[in-house]
Amino acid sequence: MLLLRAEPPRRGSPRTPVLPTTTTPPPPPRGRSQLRSPRRLPPLPLPRRGCSRFPPGSPATGGRRGAAPVLAALLGLGAVLAYGERRRRGAQAAQATPAPRYPLYTREEVGRHRSPQDRVWVTHGTEVFDVTDFVELHPGGADKVLLAAGGALEPFWALYAVHNQPHVLELLQEYKVGELGPEEAPPTPTATQDPFAGDPARHPGLRVNSQKPFNAEPPAELLAERFLTPNELFFTRNHLPVPAVDPGSYRLRVEGPGGRALSLSLAELRSRFPKHEVTATLQCAGNRRSEMSHVRPVKGLAWDIGAISTARWGGVRLRDVLLQAGFEEEREGEWHVCFEGLDTDVGGAPYGASIPYGRAVSPAADVLLAYEMNGQELPRDHGFPLRVVVPGVVGARSVKWLRRVAVSPAESPSHWQQNDYKGFSPCVDWDTVDYSTAPAIQELPVQSAITHPRPGTAVPAGELTVKGYAWSGGGREVVRVDVSLDGGRTWRVARLLGERPVPGRAWAWALWELQAPVAAGAELEIVCKAVDGSYNVQPDTVAPIWNLRGVLSNAWHRVHVTVGR
Amino acid sequence: MLLLRAEPPRRGSPRTPVLPTTTTPPPPPRGRSQLRSPRRLPPLPLPRRGCSRFPPGSPATGGRRGAAPVLAALLGLGAVLAYGERRRRGAQAAQATPAPRYPLYTREEVGRHRSPQDRVWVTHGTEVFDVTDFVELHPGGADKVLLAAGGALEPFWALYAVHNQPHVLELLQEYKVGELGPEEAPPTPTATQDPFAGDPARHPGLRVNSQKPFNAEPPAELLAERFLTPNELFFTRNHLPVPAVDPGSYRLRVEGPGGRALSLSLAELRSRFPKHEVTATLQCAGNRRSEMSHVRPVKGLAWDIGAISTARWGGVRLRDVLLQAGFEEEREGEWHVCFEGLDTDVGGAPYGASIPYGRAVSPAADVLLAYEMNGQELPRDHGFPLRVVVPGVVGARSVKWLRRVAVSPAESPSHWQQNDYKGFSPCVDWDTVDYSTAPAIQELPVQSAITHPRPGTAVPAGELTVKGYAWSGGGREVVRVDVSLDGGRTWRVARLLGERPVPGRAWAWALWELQAPVAAGAELEIVCKAVDGSYNVQPDTVAPIWNLRGVLSNAWHRVHVTVGR
Repeated sequence: MLLLRAEPPRRGSPRTPVLPTTTTPPPPPRGRSQLRSPRRLPPLPLPRRGCSRFPPGSPATGGRRGAAPVLAALLGLGAVLAYGERRRRGAQAAQATPAPRYPLYTREEVGRHRSPQDRVWVTHGTEVFDVTDFVELHPGGADKVLLAAGGALEPFWALYAVHNQPHVLELLQEYKVGELGPEEAPPTPTATQDPFAGDPARHPGLRVNSQKPFNAEPPAELLAERFLTPNELFFTRNHLPVPAVDPGSYRLRVEGPGGRALSLSLAELRSRFPKHEVTATLQCAGNRRSEMSHVRPVKGLAWDIGAISTARWGGVRLRDVLLQAGFEEEREGEWHVCFEGLDTDVGGAPYGASIPYGRAVSPAADVLLAYEMNGQELPRDHGFPLRVVVPGVVGARSVKWLRRVAVSPAESPSHWQQNDYKGFSPCVDWDTVDYSTAPAIQELPVQSAITHPRPGTAVPAGELTVKGYAWSGGGREVVRVDVSLDGGRTWRVARLLGERPVPGRAWAWALWELQAPVAAGAELEIVCKAVDGSYNVQPDTVAPIWNLRGVLSNAWHRVHVTVGR
Repeated sequence: MLLLRAEPPRRGSPRTPVLPTTTTPPPPPRGRSQLRSPRRLPPLPLPRRGCSRFPPGSPATGGRRGAAPVLAALLGLGAVLAYGERRRRGAQAAQATPAPRYPLYTREEVGRHRSPQDRVWVTHGTEVFDVTDFVELHPGGADKVLLAAGGALEPFWALYAVHNQPHVLELLQEYKVGELGPEEAPPTPTATQDPFAGDPARHPGLRVNSQKPFNAEPPAELLAERFLTPNELFFTRNHLPVPAVDPGSYRLRVEGPGGRALSLSLAELRSRFPKHEVTATLQCAGNRRSEMSHVRPVKGLAWDIGAISTARWGGVRLRDVLLQAGFEEEREGEWHVCFEGLDTDVGGAPYGASIPYGRAVSPAADVLLAYEMNGQELPRDHGFPLRVVVPGVVGARSVKWLRRVAVSPAESPSHWQQNDYKGFSPCVDWDTVDYSTAPAIQELPVQSAITHPRPGTAVPAGELTVKGYAWSGGGREVVRVDVSLDGGRTWRVARLLGERPVPGRAWAWALWELQAPVAAGAELEIVCKAVDGSYNVQPDTVAPIWNLRGVLSNAWHRVHVTVGR
């Protein structure tokens, strides 16, 4: 029902996930942030590039420079600003007045305050807070706070470890209005259980960007060593806890035309449809985000160059399943195939995304419902027992733990389709962003990076081998990689490794290498840039493609090394 | 037969057109050019960017700086170098020896010298030349000289006005071996007739880059004034004389599978197939080449920003014609649809190009055989009576004056498919280029340019309106244009004009504009850059995408203006 409604979702008000603090928090309302801006920021010189009011290294994080980068990575700058401001005000208030004695309430009384009209109350431990005035300031969005209205914060905070910070509790104290009576029992243990406790064990080699939800990339040193990334090292981008799925009772629901629906067990998927295998690279929209952060802060996980990996996927074609469900090869008008995962937030809303119908049914687009990864059963972190694999498209659309497929005249109403994974001009900031003005990222632009040598290392004099990967979206083959050892003044052509892909269906990356003599004592600014089959190239520099969400970071990759003796 | 051979053409030895001096001359053989290089060039400092040995403004053109740019534009730098070197040697020879008395020959005797084994003789006026040693140095390729072997040069030179230069005759004198006897008649007038004499009249507003063959672009001032470019101003890129086609007797030949063939009159094309209309932008691969020339010299016509135009094309789908001819929707393996034009060189070889089979038969690719342009009969300069229109693909594949369509396991063997219209690294020069290493350009990369204001002008203070166009290949929609007034330090988002295209089938450009206040006395470095639906962007600067042929010039467009009072 959710996905089959006839009208498109209202732009700007899609359903948003509960507490998605590692994804994009919606911006605060315009009026509030304009009021806050002059108070939280001292007058600053204009930044050298772009139009943000927050140049790198500005004191905008409220003076807590040590904790701020970590928090900024998790919550985004806007969140840190809001917390910082509130914290200062709280401290001032504490100095001005002695600690009050609070009235006592029952859980039932707290439970009557579930909306701004009735005031929004929540509990934490035995304390009661009226957070009505904070609702609009919540970095994760007002609607997320309201899910906890009238009850305990713990079940929600348990999902996102970022709340477990002293200053968050400190901030909360500002809103304290009472305490629970001594007869009120604490929240039940099940409600505070860590929803990530069931996550699978992971390979220790992964470079972890976030534990809960789990986000990690293979180390650059291993990234391009093999054409197919080992499953254990394949980058993991989870938005929510990993669901525990019983393969025996699992069923995929495919909404057909005219209200009919297919319900398919794993055995039926395997037996009713031909197996199809595709070697495809998946890349997160945030790959290489950390380079963008060096220009100005961005919101999102600080991926290095490893939010990209390649596997041989095995499964059934989405096309075959859609045709079986009763859909036809062509549909008049603009249609989308929407996916829902079994991974849900505490409010029960699933991860979701969509792709255009034409891509879903095109035999040349090779869109899979995959149950195998590099010849093995799909690992839990990568969508067991069934996931979508959309070759040539941003990883966010390859929904894992797939539970439902539906065809809709509108894109997925999911937060991640509507208010995340979109690109903006460098002049757009959190005060001016309007997510409805940019298309959801589907095909990604041409990309490349140097995996060897590593930045800041010393390499021996003599013959240097530079290695890396290159890839482009939409099945566009990488046709050339240029490498410079002098910062882009002069170039050489790297050797592409592996076989030529089928034209227009180059779903997998190209690994490349270049040998060059290097003299002792030299400083090398190694740069790579790739060209794809449509002769698109990477931009020279990061600042002009900077965007507040830190996605689509595909400028020339630069690695500075020194040459030893 | 030519197109249906089963084996692919030998890379590096495709059929080349006769004297295509305004297109890419094949490079001289490696050995020769390596021998010549040290002699023709004084030692030079290393260029600041790239790896060419010919930085801008170097004395490589032999000291004739005035004539050189024109020649370079027409013939390319390599040709100028070869001519310059020969000219110097000729002058030295003239100083050393008195003018000899030459033996007399008959045309019949000259006619016996048609190959390097027999020596290659040609006549010009009443003079006889042994050009055997020049054959390999000919900028247009050895095979072109051999077409004139044993006979008069005039019919060939008449096709390419570039030969009508004093220094070409001067160079030729080096090779003089005799004269025709007084009894020998001059070449027949028909043989020397200007093959371009039948070209149509053109609009005086066009900015002409080459008269013979005719190559011209609309003035930038008019380029983006209308969404559909008027036919009279649509950029014209002819490689050969415009054929005069009798529509009554015209027939299109479509080679079917198994040796069958369709032969279709214009009336049959119109009556047997549904009419299909597509609004599509065509762009020459050399658009904005003149900016690339500012980095280092390139070979090709000095297009400004106007080798791009948009029309509403009407005709039949290539798909429908192919299916009628007996082809099926899908073919196993890699196939190409090859086109031949009625425009031929003096050797009778037609202009030719090919596109992948998948694009040709895809209903979503909208490939047309067009007989209408903006509601009018196709003008002669644009392919009357029938041309191919391949939306989203470099103009060179939209073959005009179409005479033949064939399906082949190999790309078109044409010079323009094999040895022209390909992109290379900035480090590749005419001594190292290997055309077999790069794919023929099909889809073009994202592009944009500023049409107003014009470079070097003064604009009034107050509200400035910046205007331009943006477009991308492969049907990828332009989703954003960023404009900077300060050289790229800060950006604003331009307003895109017109309706949103069908996703994935955005064949037409987007026009855009931006209003901004500008202060009296300011110097503005206006820059634009576009983003397409796959979030590909334009590169910041020209030098890193420089290529010897000057194609794919899509760096940020920059226009410097001053603001008046």
